[in-house]
Amino acid sequence: MALTDLQSIDRNEDGISTVVGILKQRFGEQLQTNQSLREQHCHTMTYIPSQLPDAVVFPQATEEVQEIVRICAEHKVPVIPFGTGTSLEGGVNAPSGGICIDLMRMNAIISVNAEDLDVTLQPGVTREDLNMHLRDQGLFFPIDPGANASLGGMASTRASGTNAVRYGTMRDNVVNLTVVMPDGNVVKTAGRARKSSAGYDLTRLFVGSEGTLGIITELTLRLYGIPDKISAGVCQFPSVEDACNTTILAMQSGLPLARVELMDTLMTKIMNEYSGLSNIESTTLMLEFHGTDKGVEEQTEMFNDIAGEFGGSEIQWVSTVEDRNKMWKARHNAYHSMLAYRPGSQGIATDACVPISKLAECLSQTLKDVEELDLIAPVVGHVGDGNFHVSPLVMMDDADEVARAEDMIERLNMRTIAMGGTCTGEHGIGQGKRRFLKLEHGTGVDVMVALKRSIDPDNIMNPGKVVQID
Amino acid sequence: MALTDLQSIDRNEDGISTVVGILKQRFGEQLQTNQSLREQHCHTMTYIPSQLPDAVVFPQATEEVQEIVRICAEHKVPVIPFGTGTSLEGGVNAPSGGICIDLMRMNAIISVNAEDLDVTLQPGVTREDLNMHLRDQGLFFPIDPGANASLGGMASTRASGTNAVRYGTMRDNVVNLTVVMPDGNVVKTAGRARKSSAGYDLTRLFVGSEGTLGIITELTLRLYGIPDKISAGVCQFPSVEDACNTTILAMQSGLPLARVELMDTLMTKIMNEYSGLSNIESTTLMLEFHGTDKGVEEQTEMFNDIAGEFGGSEIQWVSTVEDRNKMWKARHNAYHSMLAYRPGSQGIATDACVPISKLAECLSQTLKDVEELDLIAPVVGHVGDGNFHVSPLVMMDDADEVARAEDMIERLNMRTIAMGGTCTGEHGIGQGKRRFLKLEHGTGVDVMVALKRSIDPDNIMNPGKVVQID
Repeated sequence: MALTDLQSIDRNEDGISTVVGILKQRFGEQLQTNQSLREQHCHTMTYIPSQLPDAVVFPQATEEVQEIVRICAEHKVPVIPFGTGTSLEGGVNAPSGGICIDLMRMNAIISVNAEDLDVTLQPGVTREDLNMHLRDQGLFFPIDPGANASLGGMASTRASGTNAVRYGTMRDNVVNLTVVMPDGNVVKTAGRARKSSAGYDLTRLFVGSEGTLGIITELTLRLYGIPDKISAGVCQFPSVEDACNTTILAMQSGLPLARVELMDTLMTKIMNEYSGLSNIESTTLMLEFHGTDKGVEEQTEMFNDIAGEFGGSEIQWVSTVEDRNKMWKARHNAYHSMLAYRPGSQGIATDACVPISKLAECLSQTLKDVEELDLIAPVVGHVGDGNFHVSPLVMMDDADEVARAEDMIERLNMRTIAMGGTCTGEHGIGQGKRRFLKLEHGTGVDVMVALKRSIDPDNIMNPGKVVQID
Repeated sequence: MALTDLQSIDRNEDGISTVVGILKQRFGEQLQTNQSLREQHCHTMTYIPSQLPDAVVFPQATEEVQEIVRICAEHKVPVIPFGTGTSLEGGVNAPSGGICIDLMRMNAIISVNAEDLDVTLQPGVTREDLNMHLRDQGLFFPIDPGANASLGGMASTRASGTNAVRYGTMRDNVVNLTVVMPDGNVVKTAGRARKSSAGYDLTRLFVGSEGTLGIITELTLRLYGIPDKISAGVCQFPSVEDACNTTILAMQSGLPLARVELMDTLMTKIMNEYSGLSNIESTTLMLEFHGTDKGVEEQTEMFNDIAGEFGGSEIQWVSTVEDRNKMWKARHNAYHSMLAYRPGSQGIATDACVPISKLAECLSQTLKDVEELDLIAPVVGHVGDGNFHVSPLVMMDDADEVARAEDMIERLNMRTIAMGGTCTGEHGIGQGKRRFLKLEHGTGVDVMVALKRSIDPDNIMNPGKVVQID
């Protein structure tokens, strides 16, 4: 399968035009059909070509989402939920057209329950908006994909980011969801207790389902107290293997690193250029430690000892909050900075995640492929989780280069799966990784298909993503 | 609904006798039909009356489980998976007869991956066996329900226990499962990576499904390094509210308590008597702190400060490992010690779990009910999770007492659900809590039914538990 081979699904032309008519009448200016807006609503931040929805509707409440879904269900017209459109795997494309539901006007923070360390909010709140809102209360929400994504979208793709090594992913930090089902009914997946054994885990069923089982219209998320002490810095290593081995040993020692991010030499250079950092251009770990004063001191001593064993430098501390924010902003902008490094290229964001013992081996074999295939592919990685992104920067009109990138990605995903890992640690399957889902999950995909069919028998919810039902 | 009203489901007599015949021929002595063995295989440790399976089979490998399930599926005969039989909600009963699959001969620890902090094992390994096996490697598995349960059973009920406040529940600590599906196919739910966004979360679908969607024949679990420093002790409080409020504030302060267990005065007395402890007979918290030397010191200082605000005593430390083990053994034996306190009674194990801010209120209102209804009902609680067990000790031949206990339980579960909590933090739904599942999850139960129907359309997998399909 070539990278840009998208599946086309038959369009239900009659249904679509009927539904657009009904919705226009009901929602007036809340529904838009102009070309540029439709184009904005299926951009994918990636090499995957756009497939436009027929209309975009902007609901303001769960009840409006219900109404839209009921109308679409009656006419068997696809529904594609949309947040910030920062999916990397074509998650917001509309391969058979239909109605894009833009949830960004549903952006209220409904209640912060500081005493229970949770927050209930609408899906259009972004992670940065949430943390801005929480800051005065000494609380924060740790999950941080590169983009300033919407929290509904982050739940849908089971997102993670730089803090996952300490705080887990969206899987671990969603307390409950309110979901509009494909028949328009509303389901609340759980209460606010910290744990429950009451029946099937509906929360985890919807987290990571990429809008293919229903539309999230409300979320309760877990919060954390801002630690007494936060220290951040960088550390250089002779090689990617040394940085990986340091991370592996730190994790195995139970060191509660809050962030441990790898950049290879190329990526370090790219980030210096794009974000005005002045890091030594070598293999780099960006680090953050959370705890009490004493706890952070203990952790950093332990880390320095381990890094020393692998030829790592002493940590160069980032001393001000501004500089720390600048450093993590640079990390979050890694994808944009790569694209700027090779103007005109597309970045193909791979997302391998392997058991940590395999990390050094998996990454170094992949870098050999990159060299052998003569690609430009900088590396960033949430290495504490065994997760890394080697992203070939490809001129998509150069068929040979595209083919070489495909070869590299194929090798990487096959290697990752063979090592007991996954082709996607945090980006999701979308359209881009469907073939690898089958290779990775085998008969498990049959179960996924059965689940999809039981909940969305007419396949109206974000069709063409994750699993295929006929 | 009375406590002991069990649903009866029509028995498929022809199918059952055919299947028993085929299995007898195929499995010889691995299949047993004698009355006493069948009785042992549906005891429920509780007030719920026994419903016997027609035969018990002891497979030794996934392939044998597949064979058994295929034969049962062909004849639409129920299959009931069995571990240690320590379910508290009738999880191993056979309301329409069928074949009990005893998995305790599948008790191999297949591989300990120390470098990835995980272990792969068969479902019949118990939590104590696992920890015995791991000890020499400096590793442990934290999840500890009262019973020395099998790990397959613990995954099936989404079990937790005293360490969940720090280490999470089975939800958080199962890496992947191998499951024999109702059609006899085998599904592996995930690899060994720490995180994944590859499709629907099949692992979490099966964790907590109580054998109603398939039979777990292999598990990979997360492990932890034994902390450098472990300190444990007890602390007394003037009232249950004070102990709860201390816990609430400690949790809100982000204190990483490893264990925080509440006993009311009655329970403290019962445990002294049964387990030979000599704790002051007052409201008690049993505590454990994990960390480095300095870290534990910091934590205990913080805890003492908070406890002091609520009239708590200084912590009385348990100084030897033997005494520490004795203390936690006493906690794990709470259920047996209660029954011994009132000979002839049944303990009705409630399992309320509320958002932590509601804990003191929920528990004290419940204790008022206990007093008003003139019940004997000691209290233990994993209070850091907002989870507590108020267990009326009931003479089941005293209809009036049974009715008063039912009243108390009804009030407790309704209160819990109204507070955004759950009727079961860790025991599961089984037969005993099905009515409350509906009250708690509303339309969510329809989704659970759809899932059950899609995966097990003939309803052969542990029928009559969790959800009902017709």
